[in-house]
Amino acid sequence: MMDSHQKNERKNIGMEGKNWSDLWLNYKAGSSDNLAVEVRDFDQNDRVIKSAVSELKKAFADSESSFKVQIIKNEEVQKEGYKVEAVIGGSDGRTKEADTELVISASDVNGALYGTFQLIRSFMMGEDLSSVSISKAPSNPLRMMNHWDNMDGSIERGYSGRSFFFVNDDIIINDRTVDYARFMASIGINGVVINNVNVKWAATDLITTRFFDKLAELSDIFADYGIKLYLSLNFASPIELGGLDNCDPLNDQVIAWWKDKVKEVYDRLPNLGGFLVKADSEGRPGPFTYGRTQADGANMLGDVIAPYGGIIIWRCFVYNCTQDWRDTKTDRARAGYDYFKDLDGQYHDNVILQIKNGPMDFQIREPISPLIGGLTRTNQMLEVQIAQEYTGHQIDLCYLIPMFKEILGFKTYCQSENDTVADVVSGRAFGNKLAGMAAVINTGNDLNWTGNDLAAANLYGFGRLAYDTELSAEEIAREWVKLTFNLEKELEDKLVGMLLTSRETYEKYTSPLGIGWMVTPGDHYGPSVDGYEYSRWGTYHRADHLGIGVDRTDKGTGYAQQYYQPNADMYNDPKTCPEELVLFFHHIPYDWKLKSGQTLIQYIYDSHFEGYEEAKELQKSWKAFEGKVPQNVYNCVSHRFEMQVANAREWCDQVNSYFYRKSAVADEKGRQIF
Amino acid sequence: MMDSHQKNERKNIGMEGKNWSDLWLNYKAGSSDNLAVEVRDFDQNDRVIKSAVSELKKAFADSESSFKVQIIKNEEVQKEGYKVEAVIGGSDGRTKEADTELVISASDVNGALYGTFQLIRSFMMGEDLSSVSISKAPSNPLRMMNHWDNMDGSIERGYSGRSFFFVNDDIIINDRTVDYARFMASIGINGVVINNVNVKWAATDLITTRFFDKLAELSDIFADYGIKLYLSLNFASPIELGGLDNCDPLNDQVIAWWKDKVKEVYDRLPNLGGFLVKADSEGRPGPFTYGRTQADGANMLGDVIAPYGGIIIWRCFVYNCTQDWRDTKTDRARAGYDYFKDLDGQYHDNVILQIKNGPMDFQIREPISPLIGGLTRTNQMLEVQIAQEYTGHQIDLCYLIPMFKEILGFKTYCQSENDTVADVVSGRAFGNKLAGMAAVINTGNDLNWTGNDLAAANLYGFGRLAYDTELSAEEIAREWVKLTFNLEKELEDKLVGMLLTSRETYEKYTSPLGIGWMVTPGDHYGPSVDGYEYSRWGTYHRADHLGIGVDRTDKGTGYAQQYYQPNADMYNDPKTCPEELVLFFHHIPYDWKLKSGQTLIQYIYDSHFEGYEEAKELQKSWKAFEGKVPQNVYNCVSHRFEMQVANAREWCDQVNSYFYRKSAVADEKGRQIF
Repeated sequence: MMDSHQKNERKNIGMEGKNWSDLWLNYKAGSSDNLAVEVRDFDQNDRVIKSAVSELKKAFADSESSFKVQIIKNEEVQKEGYKVEAVIGGSDGRTKEADTELVISASDVNGALYGTFQLIRSFMMGEDLSSVSISKAPSNPLRMMNHWDNMDGSIERGYSGRSFFFVNDDIIINDRTVDYARFMASIGINGVVINNVNVKWAATDLITTRFFDKLAELSDIFADYGIKLYLSLNFASPIELGGLDNCDPLNDQVIAWWKDKVKEVYDRLPNLGGFLVKADSEGRPGPFTYGRTQADGANMLGDVIAPYGGIIIWRCFVYNCTQDWRDTKTDRARAGYDYFKDLDGQYHDNVILQIKNGPMDFQIREPISPLIGGLTRTNQMLEVQIAQEYTGHQIDLCYLIPMFKEILGFKTYCQSENDTVADVVSGRAFGNKLAGMAAVINTGNDLNWTGNDLAAANLYGFGRLAYDTELSAEEIAREWVKLTFNLEKELEDKLVGMLLTSRETYEKYTSPLGIGWMVTPGDHYGPSVDGYEYSRWGTYHRADHLGIGVDRTDKGTGYAQQYYQPNADMYNDPKTCPEELVLFFHHIPYDWKLKSGQTLIQYIYDSHFEGYEEAKELQKSWKAFEGKVPQNVYNCVSHRFEMQVANAREWCDQVNSYFYRKSAVADEKGRQIF
Repeated sequence: MMDSHQKNERKNIGMEGKNWSDLWLNYKAGSSDNLAVEVRDFDQNDRVIKSAVSELKKAFADSESSFKVQIIKNEEVQKEGYKVEAVIGGSDGRTKEADTELVISASDVNGALYGTFQLIRSFMMGEDLSSVSISKAPSNPLRMMNHWDNMDGSIERGYSGRSFFFVNDDIIINDRTVDYARFMASIGINGVVINNVNVKWAATDLITTRFFDKLAELSDIFADYGIKLYLSLNFASPIELGGLDNCDPLNDQVIAWWKDKVKEVYDRLPNLGGFLVKADSEGRPGPFTYGRTQADGANMLGDVIAPYGGIIIWRCFVYNCTQDWRDTKTDRARAGYDYFKDLDGQYHDNVILQIKNGPMDFQIREPISPLIGGLTRTNQMLEVQIAQEYTGHQIDLCYLIPMFKEILGFKTYCQSENDTVADVVSGRAFGNKLAGMAAVINTGNDLNWTGNDLAAANLYGFGRLAYDTELSAEEIAREWVKLTFNLEKELEDKLVGMLLTSRETYEKYTSPLGIGWMVTPGDHYGPSVDGYEYSRWGTYHRADHLGIGVDRTDKGTGYAQQYYQPNADMYNDPKTCPEELVLFFHHIPYDWKLKSGQTLIQYIYDSHFEGYEEAKELQKSWKAFEGKVPQNVYNCVSHRFEMQVANAREWCDQVNSYFYRKSAVADEKGRQIF
């Protein structure tokens, strides 16, 4: 399992052989002698090229035919892109089919590695390699995973066991680390932030000598697979590590401290990608403390890190988290735009703002953050969450790629064309070189990596989508199902279908029409309709006996006006507002008629009963997979579906009872409401 | 500080001198030479007598007059009772007033100690000692404190810092332990359970050699003050400690294991009072697992411990904690009676059932548990909670003695006379020798012991009341205020008044008319009207657009029928049901008229606004105490009142908004509801 060029002292994690899942790289064990790999114009000893060759040999170990593969450097291929082609008779012109050569061309080693994984995918999916011809370049330059792993081994919003990066305030490095890097590279990820954005305690020390040795080793493993290591940073480090009495980004002492610190870090970790910073958010320190702007904070760090080629990724998740629920003027949804829009154009070139897809916080349905494309002169990237914090904790099935596709396809109207979110965050819209997508990752040290085996579809899917935003949610689902389970066509279709409808199902039985929340406070699994209604978090549904929803129009909080036209007008009017978001933007009476003819209250009842029924259908459908997927996978997923059905029932009954008790409107169909 | 007869190796807790509060025993430092103490007929070297003498010398250190005190054995005084009398001219007939002798008579050493503290109280409160003549005997034979301290140092429902008994899975013994025992003895406590009823992890080992040495030392300290040590027991010990595969109370191996274990325990802790057991409750193991009754479990342990004079205190807090909120037939309130009533008469003589005051769980207003007095042939004791779990976390002022007085005074009609709760739990009603009162205690290692200095009134008050249930809430409050603060009369009256009204104030701004709950789940501080409404805990208010309350009549869950007549009929009819409990027993429409003429909904609004105003008044009133109480006390309590006002505001606004949004009925007085 261990690559020969990995350090020998790396410890196996102590089990007889490896016992964790190979996810979508589940090759038969072994290394192929039927495979000849030739590397041309690349350095054969390059660490990434060596990984590519090693991966090919493992992947084709199962092959009965003999293959020749060439990995060729071709400067015409775009950065990190690849061409994979079958050359009949081989590149030397011979015609014997068995000698068909498969040629991977790339201009850089990452491209070569991604082309390698493309070829492996095609092979594993049973495509006809003799006619393969695929040419790709990444949609996004930055394709990142954000771990919210804490150094004590816990994971904030982790639903797949403990961290495989940290335990007991130390860093873990073992065979699993290598597999993790392989998986990430295989889906095109080129940057990983290993620690939680809430940087506290031992994690503050990640930029000290205490951890440099292990970080260097980790960085090397990542580098073998074309991945840059990034760290989340504690903005108060000058105080906590440096003993200064402040961390004012305009203070000379603070700046001097950061310069020394960053030099020290890069001396030891020359390949470090840079830092991710959550500042002035949910209790984290930041420039606001000193009357400075977010740009002051980000630019200071950007300037300090620039000589080393590093970047600063600055999160825009800044809002008042001690709001008074009685206050209907303050609107958390406005906060990102209000805090960052005015600073557009002031951020330095190696600073990039990381913006969550919606203005709230990864709900099952939100409008697109108006900050995306609202900023036109600032590097920006999209943050999504595949950790299912609000979408079922990897118990409930919720394939998120359809949601991400909607997000990427949203027309911001920031300019007359090339104005979708995909255009903006890829850098195409405004010519930004720093651009991309990041996901809060859903992994942990569970043997199947993602708690629910089916949640790996989101892990796979995010990487594939970030690399190629043109892929459809169905294409990605099908790839993942084929690679992971290699099912007969009928079951493959069934599973793809289950994935594709799962988000709508989850949405139906949880909070309706974009209002969000209604979850158990803190934990965020299961219903609590009023759980956040009288809280300090700015997350209200404002339901009373007559209606529900938040007025975010020009007569309400004005949030709708943060969008470009015609979006602003569209959202401002309940008649043109997309129905799935109508409660996000409007306070609507229960007797309001939807386009379907249903009243709002009847829609709430109907959709919740439907969602619960669909959850039961999912559970039933899964029974067809017994004996068709590994038994442990079958059992694990069966148990999750059982829990999902119980969860869906709670949501359905609690939401319906809540609104029945409040509205006094009976269900037209006379179903049981409590 | 350290009594001379305490072991020398006891460590001081590491601070220069003692820095914790002396509570109501705040004598001036020193030991009196003006005090002559003579002990007659008691053994001068008896540990309790030595404590009494030592305490007298400390208490009278401040005295300018000279006193003679005699502690005399008098077999005619009731068990643990005392007489304190001034004998003019002394017991030898001389007449000089300075030689007035104060005589403490008792038949046993505990009585002598309690008489000593009575004399000290009279002295500290400035009573005329030359005419003192007080004769008391304890109302209750068992007067116990239950600590919910965990061995990791946390306290379940603790609001006063960490445990002073445990840290890091070990037992703490230091000077504070001695002070604790002094305080408890001074209010008449004769039994202390040191560990949480939820016995897990290291606490299971309390009955093993791991802890015997320290427990013996602790038991000695307690014995110096007439207090017996008790332990909470893990019913599954035969499995967890003994390696058996079950803990079936009727299994011979299990019984044999317990016999050996209890012998081992009593060999090392001969003074141990016995065990407190929470079985079959909230996830704790118990006899139900093996199809046995609660009596089977309790009697087995009772028989095993009987040869050593020990007792088994068996908690009746048994209910289904995985209820379905949709189920309106199951009623948690019924559970105690349903589980235990049929077994009446089956419990052995050294077993006593410990019954919470109400059928739910220490809410601000509950009816009396119908099990108290419902059992007529079973030892039973009352459990109350001075840890303010549901009554303000020792942030909000809530003097609980008026509530306890109501409880004790409740006529159960279990027989034609001597039928009050006080009669029953004292043993008077049915001639039980095992009987009494226990409180879940409100202490921790905060320097003031109870988090909020004013919460010590509940600590003091419970002990005094358990010893003498005839004392009024006001008498107790006044004693405590005098002893603790020695204020001028006007301020004394003011503080007594604040204490006496505080429970009503808390009740007004929290859950109305006996319905209970509406608290933040888990934490139990602050409002969450629906927080437990859709939960598994059996704690529902059933509010809808028309009304609120739980139908526990003969047409509902039938709970009201668990009472004797005429209580059963009284509760069964909303017209005769005490209004403060009407929502506990009835589902009432919002437009129902109260005796005051207010509608129910208007009462909810009015009482909540009033409660909030009263909380503000409390805060204002406290300002008068600046400079009159120690500054640290003033500051601490001021801060608590500030938090209480914020809490009261949240309760007021959230409850009112909740019911306004649900009922659609406007406040008649047009106040702001959100």
